[in-house]
Amino acid sequence: MCRWLAYSGSPILLEELLYKTDHSLIDQSLHARLGVETTNGDGFGVGWYGTNIDAPAVFRSVEPAWNERNLRELASHVESPLFLAHIRASTGTAVQQTNCHPFRHGRWLWVHNGLVRGFPRLKRELALAVDESLYSSIEGSTDSELLFYLALTLGLEDDPPGAVERMVGLVEEVGQRHGVEHPLQMTIGTADGKSVWAFRYSSEGRSRSLYYSTNVRTLREMYPDRPRLQEVSDETRIIVSEPIVELAGAWNEVPESSYGLVCEGDDELHAFRPQ
Amino acid sequence: MCRWLAYSGSPILLEELLYKTDHSLIDQSLHARLGVETTNGDGFGVGWYGTNIDAPAVFRSVEPAWNERNLRELASHVESPLFLAHIRASTGTAVQQTNCHPFRHGRWLWVHNGLVRGFPRLKRELALAVDESLYSSIEGSTDSELLFYLALTLGLEDDPPGAVERMVGLVEEVGQRHGVEHPLQMTIGTADGKSVWAFRYSSEGRSRSLYYSTNVRTLREMYPDRPRLQEVSDETRIIVSEPIVELAGAWNEVPESSYGLVCEGDDELHAFRPQ
Amino acid sequence: MCRWLAYSGSPILLEELLYKTDHSLIDQSLHARLGVETTNGDGFGVGWYGTNIDAPAVFRSVEPAWNERNLRELASHVESPLFLAHIRASTGTAVQQTNCHPFRHGRWLWVHNGLVRGFPRLKRELALAVDESLYSSIEGSTDSELLFYLALTLGLEDDPPGAVERMVGLVEEVGQRHGVEHPLQMTIGTADGKSVWAFRYSSEGRSRSLYYSTNVRTLREMYPDRPRLQEVSDETRIIVSEPIVELAGAWNEVPESSYGLVCEGDDELHAFRPQ
Amino acid sequence: MCRWLAYSGSPILLEELLYKTDHSLIDQSLHARLGVETTNGDGFGVGWYGTNIDAPAVFRSVEPAWNERNLRELASHVESPLFLAHIRASTGTAVQQTNCHPFRHGRWLWVHNGLVRGFPRLKRELALAVDESLYSSIEGSTDSELLFYLALTLGLEDDPPGAVERMVGLVEEVGQRHGVEHPLQMTIGTADGKSVWAFRYSSEGRSRSLYYSTNVRTLREMYPDRPRLQEVSDETRIIVSEPIVELAGAWNEVPESSYGLVCEGDDELHAFRPQ
Repeated sequence: MCRWLAYSGSPILLEELLYKTDHSLIDQSLHARLGVETTNGDGFGVGWYGTNIDAPAVFRSVEPAWNERNLRELASHVESPLFLAHIRASTGTAVQQTNCHPFRHGRWLWVHNGLVRGFPRLKRELALAVDESLYSSIEGSTDSELLFYLALTLGLEDDPPGAVERMVGLVEEVGQRHGVEHPLQMTIGTADGKSVWAFRYSSEGRSRSLYYSTNVRTLREMYPDRPRLQEVSDETRIIVSEPIVELAGAWNEVPESSYGLVCEGDDELHAFRPQ
Repeated sequence: MCRWLAYSGSPILLEELLYKTDHSLIDQSLHARLGVETTNGDGFGVGWYGTNIDAPAVFRSVEPAWNERNLRELASHVESPLFLAHIRASTGTAVQQTNCHPFRHGRWLWVHNGLVRGFPRLKRELALAVDESLYSSIEGSTDSELLFYLALTLGLEDDPPGAVERMVGLVEEVGQRHGVEHPLQMTIGTADGKSVWAFRYSSEGRSRSLYYSTNVRTLREMYPDRPRLQEVSDETRIIVSEPIVELAGAWNEVPESSYGLVCEGDDELHAFRPQ
Repeated sequence: MCRWLAYSGSPILLEELLYKTDHSLIDQSLHARLGVETTNGDGFGVGWYGTNIDAPAVFRSVEPAWNERNLRELASHVESPLFLAHIRASTGTAVQQTNCHPFRHGRWLWVHNGLVRGFPRLKRELALAVDESLYSSIEGSTDSELLFYLALTLGLEDDPPGAVERMVGLVEEVGQRHGVEHPLQMTIGTADGKSVWAFRYSSEGRSRSLYYSTNVRTLREMYPDRPRLQEVSDETRIIVSEPIVELAGAWNEVPESSYGLVCEGDDELHAFRPQ
Repeated sequence: MCRWLAYSGSPILLEELLYKTDHSLIDQSLHARLGVETTNGDGFGVGWYGTNIDAPAVFRSVEPAWNERNLRELASHVESPLFLAHIRASTGTAVQQTNCHPFRHGRWLWVHNGLVRGFPRLKRELALAVDESLYSSIEGSTDSELLFYLALTLGLEDDPPGAVERMVGLVEEVGQRHGVEHPLQMTIGTADGKSVWAFRYSSEGRSRSLYYSTNVRTLREMYPDRPRLQEVSDETRIIVSEPIVELAGAWNEVPESSYGLVCEGDDELHAFRPQ
């Protein structure tokens, strides 16, 4: 089990969401409430977009996030309008930097919570399905990174929802062929510097939790005396594995088998259908 | 909060107690039951005596114990008749190897669970009380290591219980003088290669948990069908922050303000009185 | 032996000096030319000032700098008008984050190359000379950090050159009293967010190397076709343990027993006299 | 470039060869003489056989070996009759534990110095050639580990020299097909708990250095006053990337394109011919 967070909106210091909310992501590294495990201590990562959206930065480490000083330093000095953060609980693969999320390819970032069941049996066939030009860029040994490279192979850069649907379809098919029941469990966040896509899906139809924040204009009407809500832009949106602050009406569950798109203009929510 | 374990008896592979029991010490690194926190992920250490009891080995690391591969390798290949192991949950000081237990000086090892309250205020005066010849051997920044060097200064090598009583008396006195209520909370394990001493004490008289295993002869009578109990020597004894296996009658609480001595011949249990 | 670098001038990406020059600081981590050792692989650190000069950021790690990915990420995304960077070769103390430079206190940063000779013998007396209010902020075990806290005790924040002269006087005196010949070898860089002070001194009068860059206006006249020199402000200045780019006339040795001040307005160079 | 060492003979403490000789392997981590680089600071590992030769232990870490305390502790407490040690200088792949040598599969250990040229281009095809049952055991991202799994696929456990010859033949063929000149540079050490095989080969016929120690009986006659030589068994043998002690007549170069077998009975030296 892991926890992740995606932010898109007015530029803010990373620490605002990583440390300074009631049940911040870093707090969740020791005290997750909605997951299978309460501890996410097998590394963390944050990827953020700066002035050049073609070259996001990625900071990843195998230390538990709760006591990592460099992350705290970074988070209190780096401001960004779009970032993804992740805390890891390994489902078996090695605790090493190259297995920490977000994964990056060009201007794309990728975080995953969940697992490919029976991964040791499926790994080779899935790896073979990765495009030859991408194969040697795989650095780690996780299922999560492999899902990313499969999505890239299947068109992530041109059609993100379609590519993820095709990737999931492939995993389902390979899993079934190898006799794995319910091969895939996932919430996924991916971004290209302008938009964020968030997916919630699992073979068994009981996916890991995922939430998105209520429209800021609505929240302002609900909570006129919260100054923080007055400061952020109308289009600010947060997607999280579990809510980072308790505020009635602020969080909405991403429905089963669906995905959301956070972008300039109106955000969208659609059904997700493996292809 | 931390958890520790001391073993004295027939030589066994470290993994027997670190990994292979129901609620092993490594399991406690993620799922402690009796402590303030369930997670002890800020490093670990194990110190063991081999053929030369004057030179115990110490293996310490800042990685969480639950996924540390080198510890697992070591534990499955190193056998010892006397070892101390510790998993750490920092109470504020840095997560670094020199702050991991056990601390070592000559043939002495030392583990601690608890804290010196108001440590930043008391640290300098306590450090000044360390003997000049020992001062520069202090490598880390914890209260635990400082307690060790104070005990060494006050005669640990000649009279362990008396030295620890004097050390506690000093901390109580310095704490009181600086207006710290209940300055000390501790369970301590220390060994010289032949014997193990285990202390349970706190200023407020509500000390962290500490248990010792029942005499092996008694256990054998209680559980005649447990082969493991037939194999170990009569003098085998385990002391732990919390029981590592559920077995009715196997674990006894070390009473408040007392200490035990595990050694060749009959073990002892005495009252502990700060001097 | 260590190597360090201080930059003050037009805001630049850290990578410009850490990676992109011929003989950059990171290159020096594997291939130092002027030091006792060619390898500086026992950790590194960089401290930089952003918009709030009262709260510099510090990123430090024990990994060798040459292959550290997070440093590379950071350096290619963080821009600063004033930063200090350091690569470490331990002279005996532990390789741990709290022993990496720069050290920070409030808005002050501090880097050191050199050593206190006979440090184990002198450490206690020097530590006792640190002001009581500062003592518990010492986190590591190096001579370098202790020199910083002594300088702070002796007035660094009000009179940097005077405080460093008094600190050096104290070390010389304590060293002599304990029979240590030539107790101190140092180049030191310290900054408060506005200015940088750089010191070169050793008891024996043969100090580690230290260089400062030639005035930018002069360099522009010498090298009219170097576009980089046209872009930076007139007041840009670099101080380094050894030159980071080969450019005739660009580097000047800081004389023995002297110190320089880089600040708004004309920079200064003065004699350094221990007090 | 890397350096490695294999020992077979009377049980000795690991530290005897890792630390206590003139130009020990750990000394070579900072000061290699015969390699492309003088520094091997990108991790290290040691694998040793104990009483159960079917389950060798492996201790690997990304810290530079020269200051790693746990290695020093281990090396001074672990005794073994057969061990392989390795210090790493990355040729591009990540510095992580799973990329450190020795690699292990069952009772086999494997160390490599050298590289597969054009590895990013060849990696996928080489990975596909790994047997399906072995594929998911690959944990790291190095060429070295892949060579090991190819050798295992091609019969290492039954016919070590033949399997390595077939593995090399495959790499040469795949490299040539992708237009890589001189695809392979290698010295390799592998062991099964009873014997050690050491290979020296490169496509271009100018392989990295490799030495084996002179027969102990001969050395005793040459150096009758060296007590260490009297203590070790007749069959003791050391293979190293570069000599660890200066002793005229003690070291012999493994010839180009050849391999040696160290085992009970007479050791062997043969020509190596890629198949």
